[in-house]
Amino acid sequence: MANIAVLGSGSWGTALSIVLADNGHRVQLWGRSKEQVDAINEDRRNTRYLPDVTLPENIHAYTNIADALNVVDAVLVVVPTKAMRDVLSLAREHISEPLLFVHASKGIEPETHLRVSQIIEEVIPETKRSSVVVLSGPSHAEEVCKRQPTTVTSSSLQMESAEEVQDLFMNQHFRVYTNPDLIGVEIGGALKNIIAIGAGMTSGLGFGDNAKAALMTRGLAEIARLGMKLGANPLTFAGLSGLGDLIVTCTSVHSRNWRAGNMLGKGKTVDEVESEMGMVVEGIRTTKAAFQVSQEMNVEMPITEELYQVLFHDKSPKEAVSELMGRVKKHEVEDLKFGDKDPLNHFEP
Amino acid sequence: MANIAVLGSGSWGTALSIVLADNGHRVQLWGRSKEQVDAINEDRRNTRYLPDVTLPENIHAYTNIADALNVVDAVLVVVPTKAMRDVLSLAREHISEPLLFVHASKGIEPETHLRVSQIIEEVIPETKRSSVVVLSGPSHAEEVCKRQPTTVTSSSLQMESAEEVQDLFMNQHFRVYTNPDLIGVEIGGALKNIIAIGAGMTSGLGFGDNAKAALMTRGLAEIARLGMKLGANPLTFAGLSGLGDLIVTCTSVHSRNWRAGNMLGKGKTVDEVESEMGMVVEGIRTTKAAFQVSQEMNVEMPITEELYQVLFHDKSPKEAVSELMGRVKKHEVEDLKFGDKDPLNHFEP
Repeated sequence: MANIAVLGSGSWGTALSIVLADNGHRVQLWGRSKEQVDAINEDRRNTRYLPDVTLPENIHAYTNIADALNVVDAVLVVVPTKAMRDVLSLAREHISEPLLFVHASKGIEPETHLRVSQIIEEVIPETKRSSVVVLSGPSHAEEVCKRQPTTVTSSSLQMESAEEVQDLFMNQHFRVYTNPDLIGVEIGGALKNIIAIGAGMTSGLGFGDNAKAALMTRGLAEIARLGMKLGANPLTFAGLSGLGDLIVTCTSVHSRNWRAGNMLGKGKTVDEVESEMGMVVEGIRTTKAAFQVSQEMNVEMPITEELYQVLFHDKSPKEAVSELMGRVKKHEVEDLKFGDKDPLNHFEP
Repeated sequence: MANIAVLGSGSWGTALSIVLADNGHRVQLWGRSKEQVDAINEDRRNTRYLPDVTLPENIHAYTNIADALNVVDAVLVVVPTKAMRDVLSLAREHISEPLLFVHASKGIEPETHLRVSQIIEEVIPETKRSSVVVLSGPSHAEEVCKRQPTTVTSSSLQMESAEEVQDLFMNQHFRVYTNPDLIGVEIGGALKNIIAIGAGMTSGLGFGDNAKAALMTRGLAEIARLGMKLGANPLTFAGLSGLGDLIVTCTSVHSRNWRAGNMLGKGKTVDEVESEMGMVVEGIRTTKAAFQVSQEMNVEMPITEELYQVLFHDKSPKEAVSELMGRVKKHEVEDLKFGDKDPLNHFEP
């Protein structure tokens, strides 16, 4: 059994703490709010994010990050991408030997366009980390807490570390697959939030399942196109952290990115949406970052571009969707070629 | 403007008739029921399948298939796969010159394991058909009738015929892409019904979105694996007729295959489900055909196999799902390799 620090006590950090605790590990969960930490320790509840869930006894919560990091084998970081750098800087001071770093956050850093594992590598010196692993896949926290069947992917440049994380988390309800394509797993997890905003927007505009399915299909193709340019394996986007996570995020009532898009489709402004939600909507920042990267790398991403115009330049959602639908007719496979690195050309008749 | 015979007056045949009529074509719609045909001609309604939709004036319905085929440029066949051979045999007698054949049916013929275009080629002599085209994609009939945005794929071994069909159907709401991979388009459309039954079954058993997303992701991988063995382009399964149609069928309240699976998950028998639905559930027959083909071709299809056991050998849905979840842990990309023809191996680090 291992001692694991979990940094971030939102719904996903708490759900993953439950998985680890169910497997017999000691979890040291760090949260900023004293009220929340006390409720976890005394009433076994995360009252703000998961009020109906009873937490196992081997989850111990702390407001002091040094306490959470005291004598641990691994660190799991689950905070919004924009808070990642600050939390890691804070943690760094209390680490004295190389630890296994796992993250389960889905975004791209706005200014630097770094993936989360790259932020970890930048902030945590090599003397304090043995390896960096991402855990990603179709996994609503609420269902994981109910021990409903869930499958995710563990990925790292060091396969033995990905397997170590697989062993930490794997149980009867929570299945973990490994994949060596770290870039693809992180890009898929981050960029699906863009498409989820778009899917919510089409529903908010009153369109149906046909439009949503088309948007998701074309959306996954453009994510894969950018991912390949960045060095990802295109097959990863057909897997749990790509397609799987896209499905869960675009079609489920739990998704906050979908809900944000839905409000936009119904006529709210971005500011109204963000203040009403009271939670971070990762996809909004990710849209900007992905749009900028696509421009730099000269990758065609029509859905991301239209959403960028809606989110940051006041384009009307209706106009954006009708421009996406109104593009000139063309051959489907051309559009699915995933850029000029496409290895499948010889499969065409 | 063209004259087009539409054989089959179910919801999808009627919806496609509306698209053609909206584009100014004359539609000659054949149905077996005199009552239904009269209601279409007199009240402009398909009362059984789409009671709320008003049909355009340029749709003319007939009970006599010879009348529907009188002076036409193309034939669109939209009947359940098991009725395909009989309807084509009936039509054949009334065709005197080579016609463009389009079909929009999604299945595999039970005994022969033929795709629908192959049945057409077998039944209609070359002197009576100029080309065979399939139209497939994420498209609930109800939404198409409301002129909601919809995208589909037109595919044929003759690209100019696929483009001709694109021109016949394409309009502002109904976007048609072409794809030369006829095998992939037909296999994707047929086999997604299997996964839809599985998705409905997991919901019927009380599992959530995480389980459904995992099933759909793994399901698409096994469809692609079989498709590639049969000569399809794996990219087609990432497109509208593969992924797109899978999404719409597995996540929408309209899907009859999903509803059938849902009833099975809640404890009904296959016989009870079929008699309660009162409509053909293509996926049940397709599961048997796909299972048999996978055995013959030695392709691993765990989801199809478990569903086959539930549908035809009284295995309990609960046991089937827990066996799918309980498979030994492994690497994700191994599972996504789509068989030994995989062209992406060199992309792995």
